[in-house]
Amino acid sequence: MPCFELDGTTIHYEDHGEGEPLVVLNGIFMSCASWQAFVPSFSARNRLLLLDLVDQGASGTVDHEYTQELQERVVLAFLDHLGLADAHLCGVSYGGEVALRVATRHPDRVRKLVLANTTAHTSPWLYDIGKSWERAMASHDGHVFFTTCIPVVYSPGFYEANHDWIAAREEFFVRVFTPEVYDAFARLTRSAETHDERARLAEVTAPTLVISSEHDHVTPLVNQTELVAGIPGAAHVMIQGAGHAAMYEKPTEFTALVLGFVNHQTTGIAIS
Amino acid sequence: MPCFELDGTTIHYEDHGEGEPLVVLNGIFMSCASWQAFVPSFSARNRLLLLDLVDQGASGTVDHEYTQELQERVVLAFLDHLGLADAHLCGVSYGGEVALRVATRHPDRVRKLVLANTTAHTSPWLYDIGKSWERAMASHDGHVFFTTCIPVVYSPGFYEANHDWIAAREEFFVRVFTPEVYDAFARLTRSAETHDERARLAEVTAPTLVISSEHDHVTPLVNQTELVAGIPGAAHVMIQGAGHAAMYEKPTEFTALVLGFVNHQTTGIAIS
Amino acid sequence: MPCFELDGTTIHYEDHGEGEPLVVLNGIFMSCASWQAFVPSFSARNRLLLLDLVDQGASGTVDHEYTQELQERVVLAFLDHLGLADAHLCGVSYGGEVALRVATRHPDRVRKLVLANTTAHTSPWLYDIGKSWERAMASHDGHVFFTTCIPVVYSPGFYEANHDWIAAREEFFVRVFTPEVYDAFARLTRSAETHDERARLAEVTAPTLVISSEHDHVTPLVNQTELVAGIPGAAHVMIQGAGHAAMYEKPTEFTALVLGFVNHQTTGIAIS
Amino acid sequence: MPCFELDGTTIHYEDHGEGEPLVVLNGIFMSCASWQAFVPSFSARNRLLLLDLVDQGASGTVDHEYTQELQERVVLAFLDHLGLADAHLCGVSYGGEVALRVATRHPDRVRKLVLANTTAHTSPWLYDIGKSWERAMASHDGHVFFTTCIPVVYSPGFYEANHDWIAAREEFFVRVFTPEVYDAFARLTRSAETHDERARLAEVTAPTLVISSEHDHVTPLVNQTELVAGIPGAAHVMIQGAGHAAMYEKPTEFTALVLGFVNHQTTGIAIS
Repeated sequence: MPCFELDGTTIHYEDHGEGEPLVVLNGIFMSCASWQAFVPSFSARNRLLLLDLVDQGASGTVDHEYTQELQERVVLAFLDHLGLADAHLCGVSYGGEVALRVATRHPDRVRKLVLANTTAHTSPWLYDIGKSWERAMASHDGHVFFTTCIPVVYSPGFYEANHDWIAAREEFFVRVFTPEVYDAFARLTRSAETHDERARLAEVTAPTLVISSEHDHVTPLVNQTELVAGIPGAAHVMIQGAGHAAMYEKPTEFTALVLGFVNHQTTGIAIS
Repeated sequence: MPCFELDGTTIHYEDHGEGEPLVVLNGIFMSCASWQAFVPSFSARNRLLLLDLVDQGASGTVDHEYTQELQERVVLAFLDHLGLADAHLCGVSYGGEVALRVATRHPDRVRKLVLANTTAHTSPWLYDIGKSWERAMASHDGHVFFTTCIPVVYSPGFYEANHDWIAAREEFFVRVFTPEVYDAFARLTRSAETHDERARLAEVTAPTLVISSEHDHVTPLVNQTELVAGIPGAAHVMIQGAGHAAMYEKPTEFTALVLGFVNHQTTGIAIS
Repeated sequence: MPCFELDGTTIHYEDHGEGEPLVVLNGIFMSCASWQAFVPSFSARNRLLLLDLVDQGASGTVDHEYTQELQERVVLAFLDHLGLADAHLCGVSYGGEVALRVATRHPDRVRKLVLANTTAHTSPWLYDIGKSWERAMASHDGHVFFTTCIPVVYSPGFYEANHDWIAAREEFFVRVFTPEVYDAFARLTRSAETHDERARLAEVTAPTLVISSEHDHVTPLVNQTELVAGIPGAAHVMIQGAGHAAMYEKPTEFTALVLGFVNHQTTGIAIS
Repeated sequence: MPCFELDGTTIHYEDHGEGEPLVVLNGIFMSCASWQAFVPSFSARNRLLLLDLVDQGASGTVDHEYTQELQERVVLAFLDHLGLADAHLCGVSYGGEVALRVATRHPDRVRKLVLANTTAHTSPWLYDIGKSWERAMASHDGHVFFTTCIPVVYSPGFYEANHDWIAAREEFFVRVFTPEVYDAFARLTRSAETHDERARLAEVTAPTLVISSEHDHVTPLVNQTELVAGIPGAAHVMIQGAGHAAMYEKPTEFTALVLGFVNHQTTGIAIS
């Protein structure tokens, strides 16, 4: 299991396949392990680089509160560790916020950028949603955590159609997640409270694809159109029928979009 | 403050103005007091009848768990108490579920029916949202209650534009709500868990208006179209820019719709 | 059949019922006769004033090209003729454009304003749609006119569900419309080409309701949100399942909205 | 310029690049030439096969009226001519209808299927839209043709933002299109009048992607969801901000979707 150190914290990652490097950044309750089913297709033509940010999966923590500026440094250190001048960056939700931060502040490190179910800033509304999550995490009770944090990230239709899987997931969370995991989730949540890249969107130079979901409650359409309006030339596609966790609900659409955008020439196709 | 008894429980109501009777049924965190600003317009041409259901506002509770069948009986007893053969019925969310129940099972008691931000059944997804609410209520902590239950009922735009009002509301809840209030909310939430009128929608005979909101996360569009498809001749209007609590976010649109539908001949206008 | 003269042109109108005056302005292919089925409900509590603008229905024409400035003068002359200082104004499509023009330039003459399926300006796209209409009208062939101008104003669902009515309407148009009628339609279409009230929207002082339709192709959502953003305090409601001709497709919803907004106190209902 | 014969009619095509074969079928006013700007990216990893159907581009015509059954035979003869047992099929609008027909009736000839801005049947509404097109084509007047047929296929926003391009296109049409071209367009339009594959959707065995556009007036959302509901396992993505001609308005999104879906493993990614 490959890793590297950043300021004394161990950062875990996975390295699959060969080709143009594609770094994937996780949402807040995810880790490298969340992408297991995607590895064959994502690594078929790319060097797929999965990364656990600080307080995610197998990576370590730090002994102080932090913001996403820390995660930005993790991504840069990761590229340096691999000796990569740049890479494609695909982020989901929290991971999209970190990817956006890298793309606005270090545009030379990003080839193409995919932002899935991402917002340019933590609104007062999202801040309070986060507060309810933090309180549920503080209970260290898996059932409280699950019912507070999970239904809102899925579309009602997916939730109902996959209720057995959802129930199994709740049992898995309850069985596996320790108090340390819940505390890590809470730190991650807090680290996003000050997220606001709105004033820097125009500094993104990478060709960018914004992936939205029809039923995304957590980062709704208004957040998506803000990204598209601000990032020069951003493309915008909506996955129909999905909630915030589009990659779980609609893996076919998600995969076609990410790999289609990253691996093909999609810009400069001028109407004439 | 007028009231009547049902099986030993005191049911509180308000009676304003004169004209065709219009009974308004509250959402789960509401009471007669929630309608104060609406009383002048709603009672200008109608006898406005506000009602606290069991476990709402000034009404009493019962010493056992219950379903919305109890609230259905409260509404019927209310009409009987007033000597009304029938009335217009307007319900919001939980109150809409009760109104729908009365309309499907006692169609002769309902003149016109308005269902705002209502669902025909509690889906597994909504059931789990309810569970997160119940757990927050069980904490008897106003801040936990507020951040878990309130942001999801407003649209992010309204929440941000009215953040001072939202903050004041949180302080008000914390100051005023007792453990008894939270326990009442939890009983109300549980009473809706088995709600399912889908098989009876065709039995509604009252002219019906379904009011939906563009950003309603709790009872989203799929729930609204289910109502419209099932209730014979149901009209359907969407309030743009509002969340689940449409009557708070968009009182102008809500008022025009309810009073316009109830007080005017809106059916039988045939194209020719 | 009441009428009055403006600069030598006869202007026809209808005057039904008593109460607060409500002036209704027609869309481009409509006339006073289009509202026949609405008269009972619209005149039950209001003095309903239907008006054929220049080149509409039974009103006359003028011997020169004109813009909607002429129709604005017709509305003002109408109010003067009736001795009304002001009235509620409800306009549909072309009639909404004229109503908007009156409301921006003569705010003291408008009590409440309802804009149904209206745009604040004729975009280059709508201009070219109008050109296709003008060419179809110039053919003086009822079938050419019908298939070019009518399908786009209805939603596909309504069109299919009411295909017999649609077919009868085509036969009616073919039988009744003379070359003079088609030429009048073409002049009306041309008179809207320069319509642009965008810079004046903030001058509307009347409480305003914007009625949009889910499937409105002619004045789509982007035109509706432009109106709502520009007119101070404008309310906004979407009629689900309807096309541009919302008043024909969804008379129940249309009637509830117009009469509910005009006849009830809908503003100043402050959240607290 | 490669070609082959079918029953005495010359069928023109283009053959670019190497890799898994991808056959692209044109919309009604398109030809192989419409794809010029897409050739580099579409042929980078695929054998891109552009095809002019009967009455399109450089292909010939037939001396009788026909239905899309003829175009289905053209596609099959094309595959036979190339010695291909099967190929990926991507169709746009009219071309999507033909692609769907091949996929339902000859599922063994289709590897993956992409249906962009396509409908499963010609509704009475679309039939009448087609009638207006036929009449405009019968005028043999390029300006009549343009204003009747072109604005409805673009979104108003694109039309306005690219008005110079639109105007140049009108001039190009007027200059280049002969009476024979307009007659060919009219025959194509008539050939789609009886299109109805609704009862056969379940027979599609190819992995299928349905690409819709937010502002598609010609084949609106209701047509798209019908396809998605009927075709087993169909994926569904919406291109934001585009009209019916999504490939012209949003080439980046269109390219990412088609090539991402065709060239990557997008199915069998199970949640776990």
